[in-house]
Amino acid sequence: MSRFKNVAIFGVGLIGGSIGLALRKRGLAEKVVGIGRRQVSLRSARRVGAVTNTTVDPAKGVAEAELVVVCTPVGQIAQHVRQVAQHCPKGTLITDTGGAKQSIVEALDDKLPRGCRFLGSHPLGGREKTGPTYADAELFEGRVAIITPTKNTRAEDFDLLEQFWSDLGSVVIQMPADQHDRAIAMISHLPHAVATALAATVPEEYFRLAGTGLLDTTRIAAGDPESWKQIFLLNRANVLAALEKYAANLSTLITAIHKSDQTELERFLTLAKKNRDALGS
Amino acid sequence: MSRFKNVAIFGVGLIGGSIGLALRKRGLAEKVVGIGRRQVSLRSARRVGAVTNTTVDPAKGVAEAELVVVCTPVGQIAQHVRQVAQHCPKGTLITDTGGAKQSIVEALDDKLPRGCRFLGSHPLGGREKTGPTYADAELFEGRVAIITPTKNTRAEDFDLLEQFWSDLGSVVIQMPADQHDRAIAMISHLPHAVATALAATVPEEYFRLAGTGLLDTTRIAAGDPESWKQIFLLNRANVLAALEKYAANLSTLITAIHKSDQTELERFLTLAKKNRDALGS
Repeated sequence: MSRFKNVAIFGVGLIGGSIGLALRKRGLAEKVVGIGRRQVSLRSARRVGAVTNTTVDPAKGVAEAELVVVCTPVGQIAQHVRQVAQHCPKGTLITDTGGAKQSIVEALDDKLPRGCRFLGSHPLGGREKTGPTYADAELFEGRVAIITPTKNTRAEDFDLLEQFWSDLGSVVIQMPADQHDRAIAMISHLPHAVATALAATVPEEYFRLAGTGLLDTTRIAAGDPESWKQIFLLNRANVLAALEKYAANLSTLITAIHKSDQTELERFLTLAKKNRDALGS
Repeated sequence: MSRFKNVAIFGVGLIGGSIGLALRKRGLAEKVVGIGRRQVSLRSARRVGAVTNTTVDPAKGVAEAELVVVCTPVGQIAQHVRQVAQHCPKGTLITDTGGAKQSIVEALDDKLPRGCRFLGSHPLGGREKTGPTYADAELFEGRVAIITPTKNTRAEDFDLLEQFWSDLGSVVIQMPADQHDRAIAMISHLPHAVATALAATVPEEYFRLAGTGLLDTTRIAAGDPESWKQIFLLNRANVLAALEKYAANLSTLITAIHKSDQTELERFLTLAKKNRDALGS
C-alpha cells in the first residue's frame, strides 16, 4: 500500500520532478500532482513519469494533498507556501526544497492559516542541469536532506517529513534554519561563487586546452543564473562571511607564491590536501 | 613490429607509469626501461606491466634508449635531462612531461652534449592520484598533449614526438614554451590554486554535509603538495597574473552580492554559465 494517496509538487523542475519520479518508482504515492506555470514543463514531467496529474492552478493542484512540496525558485517559495495554505485540506503539512532557509522559515513558521504547518527541507546535491527531463529517481539516494524544525514544529510533522526523505533514500539531518544557512553558505554557496568566478576568468582562446581539472572545478558554474542570484541574495550575510574567509585564504596563497615562500606553500597545499582527502570522493 | 626497441622512462609515477603501460599495451615498444629512485615504485611499475626492465641507475637505464621520457617532479626535470644526456646513445631525443615549460626549455634547448636534443612535452589531464599503481593505458586517450618546439627544433624530432603522443591517443598541439606557460597558468594552475584555497577554507565540522558541488570544485586539491609547490614556483609570474585576474573577478562578484545588485549578479552568473557550457563535459 502506498504511504500517500496524494502528494502535490509545486514546481516540477529537476528537484520536483525527481521527487515525483522517486515517489512513483518506489510506490510511495498513488497520485503525484504536478503544479507549474508552464504547460510544456508539466507535459515533460508527465511524460517522464514524474507526476500522474498536472495543473497550472495551485488551488486545484493541492485540493486533495496530504503533503505539499514546494520546489519553486527559492525567492518565491514563501509566497507559494502561503498561496498553497489557502487551498489545501485543513491541517496539511507543507514543506519546500529551498537552499536558503532562515528567511523562509521566519516568514512561515507558525504563521499559516487553516491549521496548515510549514516545515522546511533542503535536499542537498542538486545538479547543474535544470528541468524535469533530467529528473532522476535516484537523485536523493545516499545524499543528505536537512530538515529545519523550530520550537513550534510538531513531533508528528517532523516524523512524517523524516520518513518522507528517508523513503527517497536520503540521509536525514536536522538543524535550525540559521545554522543551516551558515553551513550551506560554506558547503554549497561558496563553492558556487568560486566556480563562477573561475569560469568567468578563463579566456575563451584557451577553452580547447581544458582538462578534467578545470572542468571539475567549474562544473557547478553551469547552474541556473536566476536561481543562484536568488540564493546569494537570500543568504547574503552568510555568503559574504564565507567569501571573506575564502578571500583571506586566497590572499595567503598569493602572498606565498609572490614571496616564493616554500614553507608556507607546503603548509597551505598540505592542509588543502588533508581536507580534500577527508571529504572523500 | 614495434615502433621502438627501447624507450626509457625516468620517473615511474602516474604519468610515467601510464606512458609505459600505454606503450606496452599498444605494442609500441619492445623494451620499456623504468628508472626511479625507489625500488618499491619500480617494483609496482613492473607488477602493473608499465615497464619491462627497471633500474635505480639512470646511466644504465638510458644506455640503449631510442627515446627518453623524463617524468620526474617538474623542479628536477632540467637536471635529470642533463644527467641522462651524458649516458644515452649519442644523438638521442629526450622529452619530458612537466607542467611548466619555459624555464626547462630555456635551460636545455640546444644545450645538451653528445648530439642529444631536448624537445618539451606536456600531456594534459593528470589525476589527483599519484604512483604507478594508478597507471592507466588510456590516460592520454583523447586528451591534449602539447609539444613546445623552438627555432632549434629539428623537424624529424618534432615528427617523432608528435607520432609518439598520437600513438598514445593524444590530440597533439604545438606552441612556444612561453605561450604554453601562460595558457596552462589559466587552464590548470589557476584552477588548482582556486580549489586549494576552497579546500583550505571549509570548516571540518561541515564535511559531512559535502555534496557533489563541493567535491567537484575541490577534487584537484588532493594533488601532491610537493609537485604543486614546484609548479607554482616554476611558473610563478604567469600563475600570479592569472590569480590577479581571478581575484578581480571574485571581487566583482563579492561587491555585487554586497550591494544586492541584481543586474550585475545576473550578468556575472550568466557569463560564467556561458563559459562553462562552452567548455563541455
